[in-house]
Amino acid sequence: MKNFQELKKQAYQANMQLPALGLVLFTFGNVSAADQQDRVFAIKPSGVPYDQLREADMVIVDFDGNVVEGSLRPSSDTKTHAVLYSHWPEISGIVHTHSTYATSWAQAQLDIPIFGTTHADHLTSDIPCAPPMSDEMIEGNYEHETGHQILSHFSQHNLDYREVEMVLVGNHAPFTWGKSAEKAVYNSAVLESVAKMALLTRQINPAAPRLKDALIRKHFERKHGPDSYYGQ
Amino acid sequence: MKNFQELKKQAYQANMQLPALGLVLFTFGNVSAADQQDRVFAIKPSGVPYDQLREADMVIVDFDGNVVEGSLRPSSDTKTHAVLYSHWPEISGIVHTHSTYATSWAQAQLDIPIFGTTHADHLTSDIPCAPPMSDEMIEGNYEHETGHQILSHFSQHNLDYREVEMVLVGNHAPFTWGKSAEKAVYNSAVLESVAKMALLTRQINPAAPRLKDALIRKHFERKHGPDSYYGQ
Amino acid sequence: MKNFQELKKQAYQANMQLPALGLVLFTFGNVSAADQQDRVFAIKPSGVPYDQLREADMVIVDFDGNVVEGSLRPSSDTKTHAVLYSHWPEISGIVHTHSTYATSWAQAQLDIPIFGTTHADHLTSDIPCAPPMSDEMIEGNYEHETGHQILSHFSQHNLDYREVEMVLVGNHAPFTWGKSAEKAVYNSAVLESVAKMALLTRQINPAAPRLKDALIRKHFERKHGPDSYYGQ
Amino acid sequence: MKNFQELKKQAYQANMQLPALGLVLFTFGNVSAADQQDRVFAIKPSGVPYDQLREADMVIVDFDGNVVEGSLRPSSDTKTHAVLYSHWPEISGIVHTHSTYATSWAQAQLDIPIFGTTHADHLTSDIPCAPPMSDEMIEGNYEHETGHQILSHFSQHNLDYREVEMVLVGNHAPFTWGKSAEKAVYNSAVLESVAKMALLTRQINPAAPRLKDALIRKHFERKHGPDSYYGQ
Repeated sequence: MKNFQELKKQAYQANMQLPALGLVLFTFGNVSAADQQDRVFAIKPSGVPYDQLREADMVIVDFDGNVVEGSLRPSSDTKTHAVLYSHWPEISGIVHTHSTYATSWAQAQLDIPIFGTTHADHLTSDIPCAPPMSDEMIEGNYEHETGHQILSHFSQHNLDYREVEMVLVGNHAPFTWGKSAEKAVYNSAVLESVAKMALLTRQINPAAPRLKDALIRKHFERKHGPDSYYGQ
Repeated sequence: MKNFQELKKQAYQANMQLPALGLVLFTFGNVSAADQQDRVFAIKPSGVPYDQLREADMVIVDFDGNVVEGSLRPSSDTKTHAVLYSHWPEISGIVHTHSTYATSWAQAQLDIPIFGTTHADHLTSDIPCAPPMSDEMIEGNYEHETGHQILSHFSQHNLDYREVEMVLVGNHAPFTWGKSAEKAVYNSAVLESVAKMALLTRQINPAAPRLKDALIRKHFERKHGPDSYYGQ
Repeated sequence: MKNFQELKKQAYQANMQLPALGLVLFTFGNVSAADQQDRVFAIKPSGVPYDQLREADMVIVDFDGNVVEGSLRPSSDTKTHAVLYSHWPEISGIVHTHSTYATSWAQAQLDIPIFGTTHADHLTSDIPCAPPMSDEMIEGNYEHETGHQILSHFSQHNLDYREVEMVLVGNHAPFTWGKSAEKAVYNSAVLESVAKMALLTRQINPAAPRLKDALIRKHFERKHGPDSYYGQ
Repeated sequence: MKNFQELKKQAYQANMQLPALGLVLFTFGNVSAADQQDRVFAIKPSGVPYDQLREADMVIVDFDGNVVEGSLRPSSDTKTHAVLYSHWPEISGIVHTHSTYATSWAQAQLDIPIFGTTHADHLTSDIPCAPPMSDEMIEGNYEHETGHQILSHFSQHNLDYREVEMVLVGNHAPFTWGKSAEKAVYNSAVLESVAKMALLTRQINPAAPRLKDALIRKHFERKHGPDSYYGQ
C-alpha cells in the first residue's frame, strides 16, 4: 500500500497553485493527484476556501469514487476524476477550474482553433469542446456521466488523451490532466492563456487562418517529439 | 437590544473585502450588515476611503433610514438598503458596487443571460436588470425609490429574492444581498465573474444558446436543493 | 514667496499614485501641483522612472514655462501644464497619462458618451475629445499649442473647466485637473474606469442609450450641488 | 576576452524583468545580452522556471549559435538571437516573449497600425508582422530561419532595425531588441501596451484613422531626434 501522505502533499500543493495562477475565484476549482497502481487519488474537499485549506484535509478516494480516507466530503466533481483515472491509465493528475476565458469558450460551445505556436507547443489539434450532455445523463449520475461525456467525445473524434491533455465541457467549464497534478495545473494555465489569445486573434482579424501544418508539427515536436530540444 | 458592536464588525470586515476582491475603485461601494429582529443595520460611512476606514466608523441606521448611532454621515445609498431590509425579512446583508462588468451590463440595460454552470450554481434565471427609474422617482426621494424600483421589478417578474440574490439597476450599477454581509459580498464577486464571462461568451459566439433546463436545475440543486452535496 | 517644499511634496506624492493606480507604464505620465497666487508649479522631471523618483527631484516652473528651481529638466509636457494653469485660475493640479482605455478613446477620436451614474457622479456631459492639432500647431511650439488646443475646444463647446475636469486630446492621450494634484489624480483614475465601462457597454449593447437627463442631474447634484449629501 | 560575468548579469536581470512586467507565463520567453566585439551573448537556459533561475545559469553562446560556456542547454530560440546579432551590429540585447496582445496580433498576421503618440514616441511606422515561413524553412533549420525571415522582411520593406526595434513573426510571437538587454525588455513592454491599445481603438471606432504625419514626426523627434528634449 502506497503512502497516502505523498498523494495528499501533491494534491495540496497543486490545489494551492490555482489561486496563485489566477485560475479560480473562491472555491471554483479542484485538483487531484492519483496513484494508478493502487487506483486511488487525493482530492480537494468540497467548498473549502483555499486560504483555509490544509494538506491534511485532502480526501483519499478510489477509482470507483468511494472515500478511502478523510473526514471531509470530497469535491463534488470527484466522480468525474474517478472515471477519467480509471479509463486513462497514463494520467496521474486532473484539474477542473472555471477560469474566465476557457469557461467562456465552453459556454460558447466551440472548439478553440489552433492559431499559433503557443498552442502548437502543447497540442497539435484544436482544443476540443464536448457538447452539453443529454437530459438523461444530467438527471442521472451527473458527475460520473460528465467523465463519460469526455471519454466518448475523445473516442468519437479519435483524440488521444496523452496528446490532448485538455477539454472544454460545453456550457460548463474546462478539465485538464497530465502525468502529474503539477503538469495538469500547468495545462490549465496554458489553456487559459491560449483561450484568451484565440478570442483576441479573432477580434483583431475575423479571417485569421489556422496555423499551417508544418508549424504545428515543428513546434510540437521540438517540445515533445523523439528529437525534442526544449528544456534540460 | 442587540450589541451594535457585532454588526459593526460584520459590516467593517465585509466592506474591506470589496477592495481586496477588486470590486471597487476609491469609495465606489458600500456594504451593510443587518439585525432583522431589531430592525437596524451597520453601514459604511459616506465617502471614506477604504484604507482609512475603521470598525468604529460604521454607522447604525434603522429600517426607516434614521441614524441610531454614529458620528459620521452614512452611505448616500443608505435608504436603498433600508427599503430592501424592511421588505425582505430573510436577508441580513446588502452590497452595492460599481464593479466593471456588472455595471457595464447595467449601463447596457440588459439582463445577463444564463450561459453556463458557473451562473447556474448560484441562480436559475437570467440576472435581472431593472429599468431606469421614472423622472418623478429620480427627482423625489431618489435612494428610497431605488429600493422600490428593485422591489417592483422583482414583483412584476415573479422573482424570489431568496433565490435571486442580485440585481442590476439600469444605467446605474448592481446590488447584491444574502443571509449575511459576507454572503452578499460573495454574491457581488460571483456576479462580476459571471458578467464578464457572459460578455466574452457572446463575443466568441454571438449565437451562443442559453443553458439547457436540465443543467440549470442540476447545478442549482447540487448546491442549494434539499439533497445538495456541495460543501461540508 | 510660498514654500516650494510643500508644492514638491504634493507633486511627488501625487506622481507616486500613478503607478500605484495602474495608470502608467514606465515614465508615461506626469503630475504637477500649482500655487496659483505665486504662479508656479512643481512637476515631475522628464523620463525619471517612478521607483527612482525623489521628492527633491521635482522641478519648480513658472506659468510661462520657465524653470525657477531644480537641477533636472522638467517633464516634456511642462508647457501644456503652464498654459492650462495660466488660463484656468481655479485649478491647482494637472495630470497627464497614457492610461490604456482613455488613450484608446483618444486614439479613436471620439467623446466618451455618458452611459451611467458612475460617469454622472463626476460630470454631466460626455467626456470631450479635442481633435488632433493642425500641422502648424504641431510643428510650432507643440506642447504650448496642446494647451491651447484644449482651451479652444472647451471654449468652442461651452465647457466649464470647473465642471468638466478631464479631456482627451485626439490621437494622443488624456489630461485631467482639479483643485489639487491629488484630485487631478483621482480624476485620472475615474476617467480610466469610465472609459473602460463605456467600451464594454457598447460591446454588450451597441444601441445602449445615453443616461437620461434626470439621472444626470440627480447624481451630479448629490455629489456636487448646493445640497450635496455625499461624503462627510 | 571580455568578462562573461557582466553579460550573464545583464541577461539575468533582464530575464527577471519579464515576469515582473507580466510579459511571460511560466518559461515562455527569453532575453539575451550580447558583446558585439567578441561576438558572444549570454542567454537564458531552456525551460528553466524564472523563480529558479540564477545568474550563473546563463549560457554563453557565439554568433554562430555554438555554446562557449555553460552546463545547461541554451534557449530553444538561441539561433534566432545569433542570426540577428550577427547581421545587426548595433544591437546588444534581444527579447522573445509570447505576451498576450502582441502574440494575438502575430496570430492575426497583421501589422499593428500607428494610432497614437504612445506608438510614435517609439517608432514612426506600423509595427511590422513578418509572414509565416515557408514549409522548407520550417522543416529546415527552424530557429535559424526565423532570424532570416525577420531579416528579409526588414530588407523587403526598407525597415531600419535601429529605428524599428520590434517585429511580430506571423502565427508565432514578437521579438524586440535594442542597444542593451534592458532596452530590449523595455521595448517588449511598450509593444504589448501599444498592441492592446490598437485593438481597443479599433473596437471603439472601426474607422479610426492612422496618426497624421506631422504628429508621427514630432513625437518621435522629441524623444529620438537630434534636438530631442525628453529625458535627462
